[in-house]
Amino acid sequence: MKRQSLPGFAAPSIDRADHVRTDPAAIARAFAHPEAARLVLRGLDPVLWGDMLEREPLPAGARMDDYVLLGLEGAEAPLFVQLSADIPHGVTQSQGVWDAADVLRAEELALYGGARSLLDWHARHGFCAVCGTPTVPAKAGWSRHCGQCGAEHFPRVDPVTIMLAECEGEILLGRQHRWPQGRYSALAGFIEPGETVEGAVARELFEEAGVVATDVRYVMSQPWPFPSSLMIACIAQVPDKRLKLDATEIEDAFWIDAAGVRTAFEGSPDARFLFPREMTVAHHLLLHWLTEQEA
Amino acid sequence: MKRQSLPGFAAPSIDRADHVRTDPAAIARAFAHPEAARLVLRGLDPVLWGDMLEREPLPAGARMDDYVLLGLEGAEAPLFVQLSADIPHGVTQSQGVWDAADVLRAEELALYGGARSLLDWHARHGFCAVCGTPTVPAKAGWSRHCGQCGAEHFPRVDPVTIMLAECEGEILLGRQHRWPQGRYSALAGFIEPGETVEGAVARELFEEAGVVATDVRYVMSQPWPFPSSLMIACIAQVPDKRLKLDATEIEDAFWIDAAGVRTAFEGSPDARFLFPREMTVAHHLLLHWLTEQEA
Ligand SMILES: [Zn+2]
Ligand SMILES: [Zn+2]
Repeated sequence: MKRQSLPGFAAPSIDRADHVRTDPAAIARAFAHPEAARLVLRGLDPVLWGDMLEREPLPAGARMDDYVLLGLEGAEAPLFVQLSADIPHGVTQSQGVWDAADVLRAEELALYGGARSLLDWHARHGFCAVCGTPTVPAKAGWSRHCGQCGAEHFPRVDPVTIMLAECEGEILLGRQHRWPQGRYSALAGFIEPGETVEGAVARELFEEAGVVATDVRYVMSQPWPFPSSLMIACIAQVPDKRLKLDATEIEDAFWIDAAGVRTAFEGSPDARFLFPREMTVAHHLLLHWLTEQEA
Repeated sequence: MKRQSLPGFAAPSIDRADHVRTDPAAIARAFAHPEAARLVLRGLDPVLWGDMLEREPLPAGARMDDYVLLGLEGAEAPLFVQLSADIPHGVTQSQGVWDAADVLRAEELALYGGARSLLDWHARHGFCAVCGTPTVPAKAGWSRHCGQCGAEHFPRVDPVTIMLAECEGEILLGRQHRWPQGRYSALAGFIEPGETVEGAVARELFEEAGVVATDVRYVMSQPWPFPSSLMIACIAQVPDKRLKLDATEIEDAFWIDAAGVRTAFEGSPDARFLFPREMTVAHHLLLHWLTEQEA
């Protein structure tokens, strides 16, 4: 088995045209471009046109300050998304996104994910964290500026480690209390200030499962737009399988070998667990490990 | 040459005792612990005691809300750092830190880095970004709570890619306008919402140097506390060496082979560039590449 597909939201997507953002004249030209378009959304959820995101021309009277420039498409046609103050925030699950993920082209899903993270960030960052004053979008929607104290605020990207502990041909899977019945996956946690990726992996494994990692290797990454995580997927060597679970974080966990993982991947009724969805990086991390084992 | 040392701020350090942060009784016990201590700082800069950070007992009348619990040391002695509203912020360079980095034990430098990032974050996040209301520290200093809208805010960690483009046994080094004379290093840039690590590496190389990456591999990571970056160091394969530099970002860049990198590492007067400082991840990324070439 050789599988090169990427997790959801991770495909290469639009030309972000970062150089335009710092050039007010270039921003104005992009906004006035005859091919300029905007994504059509329903709240924060995507609206589809076949396997694409629906686009429409910028409406008459549109103001650049209400938009984010997502980038340039095709023959340099600028694509925007409109900021909205009344989008729901703090939403971490969305049936609309799960449904769209099954249909959208990979690069369209990635484009949507980045746009969603930006919209959510603007909606939750209308005030300056330094001085409490309302801020305004700047740099074509890629920052917010405080006119009171001069602070410039940039969109957050929160790095998260997600990891398989590995010992003697088996890996460790766990489940959280609120997950659907039968679902097990890789353990995960946010990287804190002052940590390396490897240090965060070791800390999470010890805190949540009581196992000690002696080696950590990077496998892949994925942007996860609920609201704006960067998932960093790793495999950690663990010499001792004895578990000591943190009951507040982990409801249950077990070690499983490649045959058991394959059975779950194939959706067999005998499977010990429900395999993570294909859009998740956990799905692809498990397949990566399985491919190594079966090589 | 085999070199296993870590970049500055990256060594495994204190037991962060994350479970204490969500348990008010455990926080109160830690703060009242007879061995509880705090770091001594001068503004944001470290104060040294030999090759260690200076510690002192918590003063009489200290209030937990003014402190961050950094973790537990030795026989579970709690270590804190005091929040201060009047620390300088936005400081990205500090001679005090450079000097300390040459003297401090690796785990002490890492402890300091995490503490510095937290202090800086609190100093720049006194107000709720959602509603503009002043916030208060919570969870032993690991979050801030808004009493007005209920939002909980967590410290930022900003992921940054730093990369060597590699082509036919040579790597690409560049310099920014404001760097010390002769200094060249790996190119770098913040990861944006919606990007993978690999996508951000490819985008930066194309934007800043006009080269197209066909493969990206992760090498190592480093927390960089100015104010709170997570440096993710990679090597990217580039099939075509022709450069098109972004003059606003990059003053100059060149391709160089392993012999040239070694000459610079050894500090030879014939070196084509001034090697990055040992505390930087660029230094260790260059050594990693050199080790591969010379193997
Ligand atoms: Zn302000
Ligand atoms: Zn608030």
